[in-house]
Order: sequence, then C-alpha cells, then structure tokens
Amino acid sequence: MSDLRIALAQINTCVGDIAGNTALILDRCRAAHALGAHVVAFPEMTTTGYPIEDLALRESFQRAAAGAVSTIAEALADEGLGELMVILGTLGVSEGGMPFNQAVVLSGGEVVARYNKHHLPNYGVFDERRIFAAGEDACVVSPASSPVGLAICEDIWQDGGTVAALSGRDLRLLVVLNGSPFEEGKGHTRVELAARRAREVGAPLAYVNMWGGQDDLVFDGHSFIVSAEGEVVASAPGFTDAMIVWDVPEAGVPAEPSGIAPSESLDEQTYWACVTGLRDYVRKSGMSKVVLGLSGGIDSALVAAIAADALGGENVIGVSMPSRYSSPHSRDDAMDLAHRIGADYRVQHIMPMVEAFEQQMELSAVAAENIQARVRGMILMGISNSEGVFTLATGNKSELAVGYSTVYGDAVGAFAPIKDLDKTRVWELSRWRNAFARSRGEVEPIPQSSIDKEPSAELRPDQRDSDSLPDYALLDQVLDAYVEHAEGREELLARGFDAAVVDKVLALVDRAEWKRRQYPPGPKVTALAFGRDRRLPITSRWVE
Amino acid sequence: MSDLRIALAQINTCVGDIAGNTALILDRCRAAHALGAHVVAFPEMTTTGYPIEDLALRESFQRAAAGAVSTIAEALADEGLGELMVILGTLGVSEGGMPFNQAVVLSGGEVVARYNKHHLPNYGVFDERRIFAAGEDACVVSPASSPVGLAICEDIWQDGGTVAALSGRDLRLLVVLNGSPFEEGKGHTRVELAARRAREVGAPLAYVNMWGGQDDLVFDGHSFIVSAEGEVVASAPGFTDAMIVWDVPEAGVPAEPSGIAPSESLDEQTYWACVTGLRDYVRKSGMSKVVLGLSGGIDSALVAAIAADALGGENVIGVSMPSRYSSPHSRDDAMDLAHRIGADYRVQHIMPMVEAFEQQMELSAVAAENIQARVRGMILMGISNSEGVFTLATGNKSELAVGYSTVYGDAVGAFAPIKDLDKTRVWELSRWRNAFARSRGEVEPIPQSSIDKEPSAELRPDQRDSDSLPDYALLDQVLDAYVEHAEGREELLARGFDAAVVDKVLALVDRAEWKRRQYPPGPKVTALAFGRDRRLPITSRWVE
Repeated sequence: MSDLRIALAQINTCVGDIAGNTALILDRCRAAHALGAHVVAFPEMTTTGYPIEDLALRESFQRAAAGAVSTIAEALADEGLGELMVILGTLGVSEGGMPFNQAVVLSGGEVVARYNKHHLPNYGVFDERRIFAAGEDACVVSPASSPVGLAICEDIWQDGGTVAALSGRDLRLLVVLNGSPFEEGKGHTRVELAARRAREVGAPLAYVNMWGGQDDLVFDGHSFIVSAEGEVVASAPGFTDAMIVWDVPEAGVPAEPSGIAPSESLDEQTYWACVTGLRDYVRKSGMSKVVLGLSGGIDSALVAAIAADALGGENVIGVSMPSRYSSPHSRDDAMDLAHRIGADYRVQHIMPMVEAFEQQMELSAVAAENIQARVRGMILMGISNSEGVFTLATGNKSELAVGYSTVYGDAVGAFAPIKDLDKTRVWELSRWRNAFARSRGEVEPIPQSSIDKEPSAELRPDQRDSDSLPDYALLDQVLDAYVEHAEGREELLARGFDAAVVDKVLALVDRAEWKRRQYPPGPKVTALAFGRDRRLPITSRWVE
Repeated sequence: MSDLRIALAQINTCVGDIAGNTALILDRCRAAHALGAHVVAFPEMTTTGYPIEDLALRESFQRAAAGAVSTIAEALADEGLGELMVILGTLGVSEGGMPFNQAVVLSGGEVVARYNKHHLPNYGVFDERRIFAAGEDACVVSPASSPVGLAICEDIWQDGGTVAALSGRDLRLLVVLNGSPFEEGKGHTRVELAARRAREVGAPLAYVNMWGGQDDLVFDGHSFIVSAEGEVVASAPGFTDAMIVWDVPEAGVPAEPSGIAPSESLDEQTYWACVTGLRDYVRKSGMSKVVLGLSGGIDSALVAAIAADALGGENVIGVSMPSRYSSPHSRDDAMDLAHRIGADYRVQHIMPMVEAFEQQMELSAVAAENIQARVRGMILMGISNSEGVFTLATGNKSELAVGYSTVYGDAVGAFAPIKDLDKTRVWELSRWRNAFARSRGEVEPIPQSSIDKEPSAELRPDQRDSDSLPDYALLDQVLDAYVEHAEGREELLARGFDAAVVDKVLALVDRAEWKRRQYPPGPKVTALAFGRDRRLPITSRWVE
C-alpha cells in the first residue's frame, strides 16, 4: 500500500441542509477510511451546499457552518478516525466578519489549516464578489510528510494567484475543490485546464466536483485526477455519487492509473443533467410529485419521460386537455405515453371553460388563443393546489425565444425542465432516450408518432408551427447565433443565412424579449417586498 | 455676477435611450448657459441611463455611449457653448476593454478630463463589481482657475478613496454625480453625509441626483448643495425636473443661500415615488394604458389613484369582477372610484367561468378560492392582450408577506405599484392623497367607504381578513421586525409581542416564502433560456 492514498468524495449536497450535509460528509469519511485512504477531499462549500447566495451574509448561517466543521472534526476523533485528513469546503469568516469561500483541513480532531478562495468569479451565474472576501495566502498541508497544495474552483481558471504561488513549492499533489456547473462540452475544457495546471506545479492534480441540481444550475460531478504529466489517471462518472481512490506516487515515480469511468455521449450527459435538475428541484423543495399537461407532442412527452426517470412514473400526473382543435392522435399519443412511463393519466376537456370566457368577453384572435392556454394552466394549478404537487412547464428554448408561449398559460409551472433545450435538441434527446431503453431491453418511453409528427400548437384549425416559423433545423441555427452568441444581422447574413429568414426570426426574438420584459413576474416582486439585501437560493433547507 | 456659477441639472434619463438622453443633456446645457452658469453637472451615467446592468459589457453599447459624449461636445462647440464646462456621467472603457462608471468633463468641444468611480457598490440592489472596473485616480478640473473635485455616488458613502485623496487639494467645490434610489428617510442621511464630506475637503459640495423609475427602483432627485461648513444652501424638490443654480463663493467668503425647496412629508414623498415608479415603468416600456381589477377595497383604490396620477384617468381601465361572494357595496365603491378618477369602468361577472371549472373539476377549498382569483387574472390578461395595455397587480406588502395572494391570480401583472407598502402605509397614503385633493379644492379620488371598510378578500361567505390574521397595525409591526430587520422569534418576544401572534405570523411568512420559492417564474427561465451572461434591465430602449 502507498504511503499516500487519496479519496475524492463526489457528493450531492443540499443548500442550507447543514445537518444533512454533515451526516453525508461523515458517512463518506468512514467509507474513505475503510478503503485505506489517508486523505479524503470533498467539493466546494460542502457543509453549506453551493451556491448559497446572500445566505453567506447571515450570521446565524455562518455560525451553523462553523458548528458543522467542529461537529465533523469531533465526531471523527470520537470514532477513532482522527488520523484521516479531511479536506472540505465551508463558509468561513474573517476576524473582521467578512465571509470567505473556504477550504478547511481536519486532522486529529481539529482544524489544522484553512484556505480562502483567491479568485472569486463574478460573471454569468456567479456573484461571489458580492458575498465573499478574497483570500490572499496559499495553503500547503503535509499528510505523510508530503506537501499537498489546495485550490478552489475558479483559482485554477485564472492565471496567477494561488496556483502561481504553489508552483515553486515542490508539491506532491494539488487538490482542487469544485462547484463547477454542467455545460455541454465543458468536460474536455476542465481536463485540459487541469493538465496545464498540473504541469505548472509539477504535481498530480485531484479535481473533486459536486453533483446535483440547485435552482437553475446542474452540477455534473465528473471528478478526476491528472498526473504531473497531464494524463488522466482516474475519473468518476457524471450525475451520481462516486468515490475515486488513488495512490499518489512518490516524486519521479510513474503514476498508476486507477478506475476510469466509461465515456458518455453529449446526449446522454445532457439527458441526465435534465433529470438531475428536475429531481433535485422537486426533492430539495420537499416535494415528491409533479403534474404536467400531455398534448401528444414531443415537448410534453420528453418532459414526462424526464420526470418519470427523476421521480418514478407513479409520481407523475399527466393530464390530456383536449379542445375543439385537438386532433384524435394527440389524445391517443398522450395516453400511450402515460401508459409507457406508468404515469397517473387523466383527461380534462377545456371547452366548457373556454366557451364560458368566449361568451362573456369579446377577445381578439390572439387573446382567444391565449385563453385556451390559460385554462390549461388553471387546470394544472387546480390539481397542484388540491393535491399538493408541483406543476411542470413544458416549453422548449426555441419556442420561448420566438415568443410561442403564453404567460400564465403554458408558461405556468414551478420548474421548466427543457427550457434550455432547443427543439432540435428535444428531438435528439427523445431519440437517445428511446435508444437507451432499447439497449436495455426496456419499453421505449416516448411514442414514435410523437417524435415523427409535425409540430403544432393546436390552438386553431389545422395550425402548424411551420405556418409561421422556418424549419426548426434552420431556426435553431439562427437562434444559436443570435441569442447565444450575440451575433448581429450582418454577421448572420455573412454566414450565408437567407435575409428574409434572418429578419423574420430577429423580429420574433426581439418582440418576445420585449414581452418577457413586460411580465418579468416573481423575483422582482420578491426582492422589493422582502428586503433588498436578500438574494437567496430558491430551493434551500435553511430556516432562521 | 460670480466668477463661478454652477448649475445642477436634475433629470430623468432612460436606460438605453442614448439618443433621447443626449437630446435631454443638450437641452439642459443650453438652459444652464442661458442662466449664466460656467459649469453644469448631471447625474451618474447620464448618457446611458442607470443602472444598466450587463448592458455595460456589450461593445455596441460602449461604442454608443462614447459616441454620445462626442456628439454632445461637438454640438455644444457648434452652438457657441464650448466655454460652458459640462460634467456628465457615462460608460467609459479602459484601454484593456474594462467598463468604467465614468464622469467626463467637456470644455471647448472636447473631453478635458475623465474620472472613474472608485467605490463600486456591490450589495443590496447594486452589482457594480460585476460590470465595472474600479478607478484609482482622483480628478480635479479648473473652471475659472479654481480647483473643482469630482466624485460619483458611492465614493462619498465609503471612507478613503477619492474624497480622502481630495482633502488636501484646497478645493473650491466638490461635485458629486449620483444615481441614489429613494428610500423613506434617506434624504436626511444624504445631507448629513454630504455635510461631513464637505467639512472633510473644506469646500462646498454639490450633490446632483437623477430622478425617475427604472424597473423596481425609483430615484427621487432631491439634489442639493451644502456649504463648506455643512449648511444646506440650495435644494431641489423630489420627483421632478429641476435645475439648481448657485454662485460658488471665493475661499473664506460666506456662502449665499440660493433656492431651498419646500420640505415634503414622508407620505407625500412615498406617494410620488409610487406614481413615478409606475409612470416610468409603463412609459419606458413604450406603453401608455393600464388595466386593473377594482374590488371596492382600499388596495385597488389606491393603485387606481396612483395610476390616474401617473398616466391620466383616461388611460386607466378599471374592471369590477363580482362573484357570488361580492357584497353590493363592493361594486358601488368600485364604480364611485372609477368615476372620481375618470377611469374607463367595466363590469365582468366571474361566476359563469368559475362555475364551468367547478362543474368540471373536483377542487379542494383553497384550490376553489384560487380559481376565483385566477379567473379574474385571465379576464384582465384577456383585456391586456386584446387592447394592448399593461395589467397592474394590486397586492400590498403585508398580504404578500403572509401569502394572501394567488400566483397566476391576483398576482398577475406587469407591475405591482404598492408591493412595497404594508397595509398600514396603504391606509396612510390613501388618506394623504385625499387630503392633498381637499387642499387643492379637488375631488377626493378614493371613496371614504373604501378607506373605512373592514378588509376582506370576499372569496367565501362573510370572509374577513381578521378571521385569520391579527389586526393590521399589529401584523405590520411584527412583519417589519421579522421580514425587514431579520429579527428572530426571541428578539420579537423580548420586544413584548404576544407569543401566539408571533408564532402565527412567523409560520405564515415562512410558508409564504416557501411557496414563493416554488413558483419563482420569469427571470429564472429567462436567464437559462437566453444566455447566462445576460442580466439586463427590464425596461430599456436599447436594441442591438
């Protein structure tokens, strides 16, 4: 056995559930010890969950995080595991009361070192300069009398700072604690970056990442270790609990590979990211069941399949809500889907309510279409309120981008599982999910006719998406360039897109964005009504 | 005439409307020149509007802001006003491409100095470290051969930085450009702070603040000048365009007071803050009319009065939506109110639609109450969609805090004008508005019976808010302590509140907060679906 065996505990923490996170950390410490590890490392902000937003500023929360660290150190010593070195993330506080994004190192029943994150990301989904002070000192600890350096997530994404400070320190290992959200294709970027940093410090780099969903983020895990030469010597799968165990070689000795996780296709990764995001949004909110409308179309079919994979088909209520414009196959396909995934299938006709509105009010054509969508939203919320279940919205990114969505109608829901997938991706993931079922000899969850049929909102007679939109394959390319990559009209034309298509799509997107601005609902009200200093996580187990 | 006359132009800029802001700035420069001013100063981020959030990061927006500065400098020179020194706020960019919150000084048709804000607020509603680099150098310009120092807003709220650097520079004047949002009672704090900074630098301090609404913020203006001894020598009223003109005394010469604005009561200030926030949300979104439900109660009455003051009664559609539980006086009071404010009054019974739902679905008691609220929301949105008007939500802060609000029901709306007023404040401002009308010999907008009646949601027979809530005077005290000041149960009991009341209110608030987290709608979806780097203003005239 090596003199320095490290374990990386890839876990799914819950924001604010400090007692639960503490129990999970202790459990993984025991497992690491049983596997002969001398050191076990956890992801970023392990005791508190991540990201904690303005909870970082609350003194009661800071005290609870500090209490968790003491509890863990003492419990390990009491259980005779005091010699195991534990590296975990927590919320630290400076003497002046400023919060830190901190790694603590436990050994012999006490904290033997603290490291405060240097580089605080403050772009995109990150706002860490709002809530944390930046650390200034590097940190090296010495298990088995070997120098082991620490870093936290963004520290390796920026040049300079702690990695530069550690590069002359003759490290035997660099341990990096991460809360790195999933993005398609980011896995390669992470590994290449880690390999570069490993070569920079001349030591293997152990990258431990959390997994799980938190509000609108999904963390994928995919922890790994690269050798000093930058080769991957151990890796964990995504979207699941895992423990990497690896014997750190002595300086100059070649690294021995440990377990390497099978590679996952992008479709597979993204599908499980959607499942994880939905499951944790529901469960971390303390709920277990969901309700959604089943139209027979591909969007609601994919959402239902994701929900069944996340929560079990028995926890999914699927409601067919036919109108005078619904085709017979819509209802057949909805029922077929519900049976395939084992959902609670119901039918609720909408015409009695729609006709009551139509008889009472004089509505424009668009307003009348919206009434249909809103009656469906009310039906789903009626079930949600009566039975205590979450409503899911089934809109995809393409239709949200061009404004084919009714506020307070099909946009109703606590969570929108495919809001970040364009229509092309919706089809791809549906086909992947069915192929996955076939490969396991299971029933395909999604009816083939839902995949094959031409998309339609069925809000007026013989309506087809193609009546008013370009083909989705083309639309999604234009949207990706305009919305995701902020290319302008001239850049789009230079790339060879047809001018009429470009002008039409850009006009739709601009109008939809304007409409979204009109009705930006919830958080805006929340922020004003409940104290301006409170930018808080949505799903959180923290109670003052 | 003095050798150094300064003008402070208190204006209402619009985020993203760079052409409009440029025209407004030029207009005020001409006015200042006509009044004999040697220097005219504008509020923070004048060319772009404020706050601009992630628009700061867009190169096209940065170029447009730079273009506006050139346009203004050249236009002034062309008009023969080149000798007027103009101090205005804009979006600057460093050589390395980092955005600055910048003041530029124009003279003789060109930029003669630039000052970059030192202290970037990054708490509460502010996220300036996300989008701006911090300045490091102080800036002193020399109109009339006199040293005049510059600072921007937060620079005077923090110790150290530019004010400390200026304190030995023998200034004749310190000019501070501000985008300081309205809060009740903040006026005194600003003046005391400015007086302290004036004494610190040994010179008068000219504080010029913007006014107007931007999304969920309202800026109040209330610009002023304090002498080197810290006495207010000039001030402007709130919530309106204004120009302060003042002759800066030579060193050692006593300051002469200029115009002092009449003092305004807190009720008056807060009422006009609500009017300003609503007017600018609607108008800066390019809209002109609103629709709201009129229940006969005080909340919808106050919102209607605010809307009529903001947009004119003829631009307000008030809809009475009686149910089987509505009392006769509810409809009378709603009609009376509509006539008083000159609104377009309509009646739409809800029972035909409610009964269609009740006949079709088996609903729990709460779900059935929600159906009534949601049918009303659908009626208002039907009018909104058919007639192209904004829907207003009429909920107050007390009922939002305890969860007496139905998502997709009475919470429906593009804007919620009284969401930041608790019920006690709703009554106070209603009484103030009626007294204001009496003092001007005008018709009181709000029927006395709406002020006097006992609050009821009228969602079931003989329902009263007092059936399930403590008296509002008491409730609002508990909410203020728990929600606004984050006091815990023990602190509330120590302050003498009854334990049963405290436990009931805290349980309601916690449950309401949990429910708000369930359905946090819009922006979350927007952020994910439309690029993670885009935290953008809601109302903005900027188009790529």
